[in-house]
Parts: sequence; C-alpha cells; structure tokens
Amino acid sequence: MVVTVLFGGSSYEHEISIVSSITIKKVLKKSTTNFIFCDANREFYVIDASNMKSNYFSSGSYKKAKKLFIKQGGFFSEGLLGSKPFNTGVVLNLIHGRDGEDGKMASFLEFNSIAYISPRLEASVLSFNKLYTKFYAQSVGVKTVPYQVMSRNDDRKSFNITYPVIIKPVRLGSSIGVSVVKSAEELDYALDVAFEFDTEVLLEPFLNGVKEYNQAGTKTTSDWELSIIEEPNKVEFLDFEKKYMDFSRDSEVGSADIDSSLEVAIQENFKKIYNTLFEGSIIRCDFFFSQGEVYLNEINPIPGSMANYLFKDFEGMVERLSKNLPRERNIKIDYSYIHSIQSAKGKA
Amino acid sequence: MVVTVLFGGSSYEHEISIVSSITIKKVLKKSTTNFIFCDANREFYVIDASNMKSNYFSSGSYKKAKKLFIKQGGFFSEGLLGSKPFNTGVVLNLIHGRDGEDGKMASFLEFNSIAYISPRLEASVLSFNKLYTKFYAQSVGVKTVPYQVMSRNDDRKSFNITYPVIIKPVRLGSSIGVSVVKSAEELDYALDVAFEFDTEVLLEPFLNGVKEYNQAGTKTTSDWELSIIEEPNKVEFLDFEKKYMDFSRDSEVGSADIDSSLEVAIQENFKKIYNTLFEGSIIRCDFFFSQGEVYLNEINPIPGSMANYLFKDFEGMVERLSKNLPRERNIKIDYSYIHSIQSAKGKA
Repeated sequence: MVVTVLFGGSSYEHEISIVSSITIKKVLKKSTTNFIFCDANREFYVIDASNMKSNYFSSGSYKKAKKLFIKQGGFFSEGLLGSKPFNTGVVLNLIHGRDGEDGKMASFLEFNSIAYISPRLEASVLSFNKLYTKFYAQSVGVKTVPYQVMSRNDDRKSFNITYPVIIKPVRLGSSIGVSVVKSAEELDYALDVAFEFDTEVLLEPFLNGVKEYNQAGTKTTSDWELSIIEEPNKVEFLDFEKKYMDFSRDSEVGSADIDSSLEVAIQENFKKIYNTLFEGSIIRCDFFFSQGEVYLNEINPIPGSMANYLFKDFEGMVERLSKNLPRERNIKIDYSYIHSIQSAKGKA
Repeated sequence: MVVTVLFGGSSYEHEISIVSSITIKKVLKKSTTNFIFCDANREFYVIDASNMKSNYFSSGSYKKAKKLFIKQGGFFSEGLLGSKPFNTGVVLNLIHGRDGEDGKMASFLEFNSIAYISPRLEASVLSFNKLYTKFYAQSVGVKTVPYQVMSRNDDRKSFNITYPVIIKPVRLGSSIGVSVVKSAEELDYALDVAFEFDTEVLLEPFLNGVKEYNQAGTKTTSDWELSIIEEPNKVEFLDFEKKYMDFSRDSEVGSADIDSSLEVAIQENFKKIYNTLFEGSIIRCDFFFSQGEVYLNEINPIPGSMANYLFKDFEGMVERLSKNLPRERNIKIDYSYIHSIQSAKGKA
C-alpha cells in the first residue's frame, strides 16, 4: 500500500501534528510511506522519510525540500517541463486543528480527486466545532453534557453559572484554552484565556466522579472495526503538555475494566455518531459515564496518531479502509437547459 | 475595483451559475471584471468578458481558454518560465450548489489568501444542508417550519405524515428534487425523485395560505446593508425552470406591501441569522409569515446573481464589503514545544 501522511498546517496544533506523523511513521511498517508537510505559511513540501525528525521542521531545514501544489488529479511539483505528478496513493490527513480538522483539507482532496482517509467536509465542520457537535449528537439520539455558549461580546454577568464549570473554546482540540473554574473569582481569567483562541466558548458543568471512556473505530466495507475501549489516565483533565505526549503513543494499551452492557452501550453510541457522516475516516469518541448514562464528551475527528494504540491491526485497517472509501456523487452536466433556451431562441 | 467572478462547478446548478454570472457582468458596470470558470471536471479557465455567452460553455469552446490553478497567494497560470500570478482583486464566488455553496471554494480561497465575497466554511456547511440550517436557526432564536428527516434506507412506512407535505433533498438549492405531495399515493414517487439527488430528505408540512418574503443583505464595516423585502411571485413553489429564469434578473423590483412591524420582524430575523457567521457574504433569507409568526424557510448562501435586483446600489455595496472582509485569525508557530523537548533531551 502507498500511503502519504499529510501533516502540519496553520494551526495551534501544528507541532502536535509533527509528533503525530513521526509516530505514524513507526506504526506503518509494511507500507510505502510518503510525507507531505504543510508549513505555517500553508505551502506544501515533500519530506524524505529520513528527515522525519522534529528539529528538521523547527529549524526551518524543510524549506530546502521540494515544493508541491494541488491541482485537479493530485499533488504536483513545478518543473521546467511543466508540472509533474506526485503519487500519493491514499492520503492520511494528520493535520490536527485548523486546516486539517475544520474541513479545508477534505475540500482540497475531494475536489482534486485525491483518495484520502479523514472526515469529509460536513463531518469536519460538525466535529471541529463543539457547539455543532452538540446539535449533531442530539439529532442522532446521543446524549451530551448540558452547556451554555458565550460569545466574546456577551455580558458575562448575564450568565447563570454553577461551579465547578469547564470552559472550552468552541473550535479547538488538544485542550488548548480549556480551564476548570472552581469559583466565580477565577472565571474572568479563564474566559480571557479561552477568548484568546476563539470568539465563542462553551461552559459545561464539571462533573465530579465521572468515568471517561474512549472508543475509536471506522467502517470498512459494511463492517464496523471498533477499537478496544480505553479508560484514559484520570487527571482533572489532560492539559496541553500531557495531550502532546499522548499524541506520540505507539504501543497498544489495555482495555477498560467494564461490564459488557456498558461496553455495548459505548459501542452503540459510537456507531450512532459515526453513522454515514464519518465514512472514510478513523475517529475517536470520548464519552462520559455518569449515573448509568453515557454522554458524548467530544469527537476527535483526527485523533493523535489516529489512535493507532487502540487497535490490534492498525495498518491492516488503514489498508481495508483505503479500498472502501466513500465516493462522491457523479454529477453529469449535459447543458440541456442552455441548449433548450438556445433552441427556443432559434440559435441552436 | 477589480472583481473576479468565479462560476461553474461540479454541481446540479452548473448551468444556473453560468446564467447568474452573465447577469452579474451586466450589473457590474464600473468595475474591472474578470471571469474564472470551473468546468464539470473541476479545472479552472480564465474567460474573456466577450466570451461570457452561454453557448461558449455548452459548446465546449471554453477549453481553448487559458487554464489556471490555485496555490498559496492566488490563482496562477503555468508557463515555460514558471507559474504566473493572475490578479483576481476580490473574488465573487458565484458557484451555486456543490463546490460553491458547500464550503469547498471558501476553503480554497481562505487557505490560499485570496480575498473573496461568499459565506466562509462553517457558514457554507450550515446553510447548504437544510437540516443543519434548522439546528443553527434554533440556536440563534429563529423559528423554522417543523420537519422530519428521512434517510434513503429508512422504512418509509414508519413515518407519520400529514398531507400536503413538501419533500426536499437536504443538500440542494434551486428547487431541484423538490415536490409537494398531496396524498399518500404520490409519496413514493416524490421520495424516489428526491433520493435521486441526495441520501437524506426533509419532510415539512406544506403551509397553505402562507405569505413568503425574501430579505437579502450584508454587513459592511459594522453597518447593516439590507435590501428591500420582496414578496416573490406566488405559485405553488418555484420549479427549476422558473428559478432558472429568476437567476438572470438584473432590474430592480418593488418592495412587498407590508406594515412596518412585519418589516422590522423580518429584518430582525435576518440579522439573527446573518450574525457574525455570515460575515463576508451577501445572502438572501426566505421567510414564511403565518398566523403572526415569521419562520425561516431557507438561507440562500449564494443567491442567483447575488440578488442584485433587491438592492439600490449593488455594485457600491460589493465595493464597501470588499474593503471590510473578515480576517482569519493569525496563528503564530514558534516551535516552542519542540524546542523545549529538544532542550530537555540535551539536543538543543
């Protein structure tokens, strides 16, 4: 299998994406793996596998690599004799945060007929924005934690808040800008931090004693391939530094110690979210379990190193999925309407 | 002002987009206007203004025009001495339906730092999909008509339907695939037609005697520029052919004969929808008025010829808007995290 890992992006998670891709390189043992880096200026470079080290990027050395651009049919390099195609095989979109998870890469790859593994455009927008995720979850019958939305210009005093409360920028992953606020005195600072990153934030009750379970998976042909269920290490919440290290995991973890009825409930909630909307992607859903109910906390549309450590045969799954990607509807344009107008005008 | 009209696309509304762009050419009298055509194969061509006639496209003559591609910084043509930039000024995205209204063009233009007038990525996805529009309208306090969603594989008999009912594919504009169904006998055929175009359809009660009002507008600097309110010609609903002709309107129409309280109610609902989400675009909202209540029927994120006929000074508004486009958040990538890891490892 030929796989091209696409990573980087103009995103707060740019560095995380580099770590995630270096990890994926170790995991994809049998494939021919290419690397395309999208730098902070949103230019694309082909990276030789031997240069997949973090300081190659942080030092700016990557700028000596060959540039690529996208046009109909794929990625190309510019040359004296015209543009030259670059064989991507299937693209693994590993750009976390803006550009990758917000739907831009999905747009480019879809429009330019490049095979790719990642949520499609609509799935990206609905999962990248945590408010829209709430709407979507509700529409497919999955419970979410209650919330309020605050915009930057709203009057903070008009909100009725019960503490502790968790503050999250609407559009970011990797816990960036997230705070747990225990009392009213800490609120303004936490909101100021969150509004550094986004114009809208979610306020959710911080549930004490809640259990957290992660379920990753995909659908290949018509079969589900679900990961083990993981109970992530319990700290108050994963801060940026811990999540960052989390993105470099490449060894299998143990299953959560839960009874089979809870296991089934988590799997069924995962399938409702994945639905047809997420076809073509490998996602991870993070659930809360409290007082007998399962709640969706969030969807990770492009989990760190695609959550490889939760699967028994990650590389095989990527290969099976790459053979069963959703196809865009074929729209035939035959100009029948323009022909009929011209004909009516006597011009045909 | 330099304006580039971007039109065509791989869309059921491809031909409508051509008509819409020919109309815009007549409306933009003072500007330097360029034209970029996206053909059915999703390749871009520069079209000379003198060739902006429908048969230039339907005959395939456009294939002789110069091809463009998009890369960081704008549209470019390929040449023997490398790629050559094409000065677009501000792009008017006039691709109706897929590619234009679904968020793909917004993605390309935003990512590649090209100034453009059109809904941004999130706004596109929420308005192109009529189900998501319902979620969004609810979240900003705008009423919508009640609905049910049916997926292609659902058991049609399990739905409780009151007739007459209107059937709409979730993701199409221009009334394509829409039917009014008066009795159970007609239902299957109407659903089959709608499912030709989409995997999901909305079922809404067909409201008899409802009044329909259209409001277009935009926000330039911090001021609203709202159009007159139009009461569209009342037929059962506009079919494809009538909407098609509608897309070529270029002369001003008269205001609806309504009292000022209804006018204000419609304007306020428009502003709630436009909000900050639609900044950078000129949209039209179609409202229903029934028993004293205003309901959003649908958002036209890229109305036919941008609804120029509803504005007193369309070209001036485009110019004011082009000077007040929303700016993407600037994300600084300084590799501080990678540097700190390298430093900890003694490699820095």
